[in-house]
Formats: sequence, structure tokens, C-alpha cells
Amino acid sequence: MNETNPHQTTSPELSRLAVHTITTKPWSFAEAADQYSRQGIGGISVWVEAIDGIQPTTARQIVDDAGLKVPALVRGGFFCAGDQRQRDGRIDHNLRLLETAAELGAEMLVLVVGATPGVALETQRGWVREGIEQILPQASSLNVRLAIEPLHPMYAADKSCINRITEARQICEAIDDPVLGVAVDVYHVWWDPDLAIEIELIGAQNRIFGFHICDWRVPTRDMLNDRALMGEGCIDIRSIRAMVEAAGFDGWNEVEIFSEEHWRGDQKQFLKRIVESYCDC
Amino acid sequence: MNETNPHQTTSPELSRLAVHTITTKPWSFAEAADQYSRQGIGGISVWVEAIDGIQPTTARQIVDDAGLKVPALVRGGFFCAGDQRQRDGRIDHNLRLLETAAELGAEMLVLVVGATPGVALETQRGWVREGIEQILPQASSLNVRLAIEPLHPMYAADKSCINRITEARQICEAIDDPVLGVAVDVYHVWWDPDLAIEIELIGAQNRIFGFHICDWRVPTRDMLNDRALMGEGCIDIRSIRAMVEAAGFDGWNEVEIFSEEHWRGDQKQFLKRIVESYCDC
Repeated sequence: MNETNPHQTTSPELSRLAVHTITTKPWSFAEAADQYSRQGIGGISVWVEAIDGIQPTTARQIVDDAGLKVPALVRGGFFCAGDQRQRDGRIDHNLRLLETAAELGAEMLVLVVGATPGVALETQRGWVREGIEQILPQASSLNVRLAIEPLHPMYAADKSCINRITEARQICEAIDDPVLGVAVDVYHVWWDPDLAIEIELIGAQNRIFGFHICDWRVPTRDMLNDRALMGEGCIDIRSIRAMVEAAGFDGWNEVEIFSEEHWRGDQKQFLKRIVESYCDC
Repeated sequence: MNETNPHQTTSPELSRLAVHTITTKPWSFAEAADQYSRQGIGGISVWVEAIDGIQPTTARQIVDDAGLKVPALVRGGFFCAGDQRQRDGRIDHNLRLLETAAELGAEMLVLVVGATPGVALETQRGWVREGIEQILPQASSLNVRLAIEPLHPMYAADKSCINRITEARQICEAIDDPVLGVAVDVYHVWWDPDLAIEIELIGAQNRIFGFHICDWRVPTRDMLNDRALMGEGCIDIRSIRAMVEAAGFDGWNEVEIFSEEHWRGDQKQFLKRIVESYCDC
């Protein structure tokens, strides 16, 4: 693997910046890798959809050629489903994703845990725990970490039964394996009155695996695809970053923005603005 | 005040059903009161907007003539604003609303506490506490209760800095006055892993003043006006009602639905469905 980004600046900060491929959705995977690298960005977090039809070994070659690292393969998980057979199917899917993650050289697989409308969230968190327990041995043997990403409570009905760091931490503590941790996305957790204490707790357990940034637009016009660029919204990213760093996190700052508005614009300009706003926040 | 609803059935449940005027927004206040009464509904929670241009004494006459009670005047609060003068203005506004509530014979004024984008939520909760402290003497003397309504975290940026029962309870405990309590709206709190324990806590303090029902549509198409009728969504209303009742609550079940879809339909049919789904959930 190529250890040097040919476009790398000397900024230590940029070397910790990664961008999720979904952020520049109009670009092909190869174009995204090339453009990120040209901006001096150090990492690319790979959405499964972005490498649809591309062999993992080819994808890895693209990433290596661009001198990028892969903090995460996104998104695994989705453990929640009404019947056992469906849930078993999800396990198989996650096992395959772990292989892909390993082939890509990804540090972690991000787990969006899923939700089934109408089933008690606590019951579903039990399914999540069972699911993680089943894929954990493979994650360990492949040396790919598993990061539970709590999603905002507005996704509790159908996307994630884990909506605070608290519940992610409790599952981590119950399973208690160093391969399992948490991805902290400011978009999902900024509102939480327990944010500071929870970051402190998971930091002390060395369980902050990922730190995702973007901003919360005011007003938000769409529940899914109206995330804002850092600085365009109301999240105090600087404070939350200070919290995770005080808690011992020194990993990637991963920019993950889903935005119809930004996807419609010029992606090169958008990427420049991402770099600028990252350096500024 | 007329103590008997001329259209009242013998169902003890319907006598505890109230509807928020916003639910049937296309109707005038007088029409809403008449129609609710004809359905045997016991109460009407009055949105300030619904009586715009109507004298409170006239509004009360309408309500009395229909044989309805008024659980709540909705919505006061909005204590959060960037500068002190604005915040003082909000206090004045709340004092006037308390007079209106008293003139209407409303049991309580519901407080949607407000939020100012970019200011730490904890700072804002300090403003809320100060604001409540300033209006509390008038609320006491007018015998109108104050109910803090936590709003869903998706409204944390610009509508409410109180997003869980926990933070509402903490302000209640800090102020510690029997006139101050909480309105529990299933739409806002159903996802909260601490829901059961928090309801138990505020129930033990006799602070469950209001219980609002509607449902969470899956998928939700709009963050503001896509609430569902009870039974159309994923909230286990029956369980949450059991929790508040086990915690000692025996007050109104207030239906509060904002829905472009339902507002577009026939309001009489909608009201019938409200009554049916209320009896069923």
C-alpha cells in the first residue's frame, strides 16, 4: 500500500481529514479518490454503493494510487427485522461487508443498526446486540473494527433503534470487546444533554472509533438529504471536537454530508469549501 | 359555566378526550367547538391562533355553550432569544397569554420553550428557567398551571431547547412549585430510552399536567406537518398511556395532530376517525 499522498500538504490537520464518498455522490469512485487526493485530503470513507460493480481489490488499487487511507466502509448493520430469517440474512450480509472492508484496508465497518416500525426499541436493541455478537469473531480475525453509529431520534422509527451514545455505549459494555466502539456523528448527537459525559465515558473506554462532521441546517427542509456544510448550520463542531479530543480521540475527522442542494452544485467547488470549512471549524 | 356537554355520551373515555384546535385547522373556532361537542368530545385545547380576533370572553361563551372544557391554551413559552430585551418581550407576551388562559377557563398554558440557533442548549435552558420564574407568580394568582412541553430533538435547533422529559423535570425540580409541570406528548418522547423512568419520576411529583396523543408516520415526509392519526404510525400509545396512568395521571387525552394531509381532507370525517382511533388506542 502506498503510504504517501502525492498531493499531501504539510498540514497535520488535512492529513486527518477524510470524506465520505456519499458527500460527493455525483462523482464516480475513481473521480472522488482522485479529487480528494488533489485537495490534500488524507482519507476516503467508502460507501458500499460507491463501489457497486467494482471489485474490492480494484477499489483498493484506486485508493492506494491516490495515496488515500480508508477510515471506514459505510454502512453495515441493519440488524433489525421482524423475523429471525431476515435477521440471519443481515448477519450474512455483514460478514460479506467485513470481507470487503478488509480487502479495502478499511479501519472499521460503520454499523447503522436499523429499526423496525412498531417493535419496542429496547427489544430491537437486543437484536442489535445479538447481531454484533455474531459478526464480532470475523471482525476480530480480519482486524476490522465495528463502530456503532447512533442516529438522531428522528430516525428511531425506521432507521436506527440506537439514538444516543448512551445506548451504543451500553451495548459496547455488555459485549466488552476492543474491536467494538462508537462512531460519533455531530449531526446525530449535538442536541443530547448527556453528550459531554457520554463522550468522556466512551473515550475512557477507548471506544471513540469515528468522528463524523457536517452541520444542522436551520431550518432543515428534509429529514434525510439536507445536511449542511460545517459552518452553515447551528452545531458547535469545535466544542464537540474538543470533547472527543480531550477524551483521547486522535483519529479521522470524516465529512459526511447528504445534501440535495450540494449534490446539485459543482462538486470541485464543494470539495474546496469542505476543506476550507474543515480547517475553520 | 355550563357543566354539561349537550352531546355527551355515557362513555367515560370520551369525556376525557380533548382535541387541539390546530388538529382541525380549516375550521373556525366556533365550528370546531360545535363539531367536537357533537362527537361527544369533552374538551377543546385552544391554540392562540384559533381565537385571533375573538375576545376571550366571547371564546369562553362559545366553549361554554358547546358544553366543553378547556384543558389548555396553546402555545406560550418561547423564552429563548438572543438579547435580553427580546426575552423581556416574551415575558410580557406570556403574561398576556396567562390572562387569556384564565379568561378562557383553561387549566394550563402549554410552554413550548423556544430555541435560538447557535447558542448552547444548556445556556438556553437557563433562560427558560428565568422566564418561567418571572411568569409563575401570575400563573399562581390566576390559577393557571404551566406545562413545559419537551419537543422532539429534531426541533432542538430553532423550536425547543428542551427535548426530553429529563430536562423539563430538572427545571420543575429547580423551581419546585406545584403550578409547574410537564405536558407529555407521545410524538416528542416516544423514542426516549428513559421514557418509563421519567414518567414515573414526574408522576411521583404530580407533575404530569398534560398527555398529548397522535402518531409518528413511517416514513415521515415533513418535519412539521406530517403527524399521523393514532394507529397510522409506529407509536405504542397504549403503553405510554399505561405508563402515565400508572404514574397517577387521570387527566385529558389531548389529540394534537398537525398534518397537511389530514387538513386537506373532510374535517368531519377526520374528527370521527379521531374519536374512533382514540377509543381504539
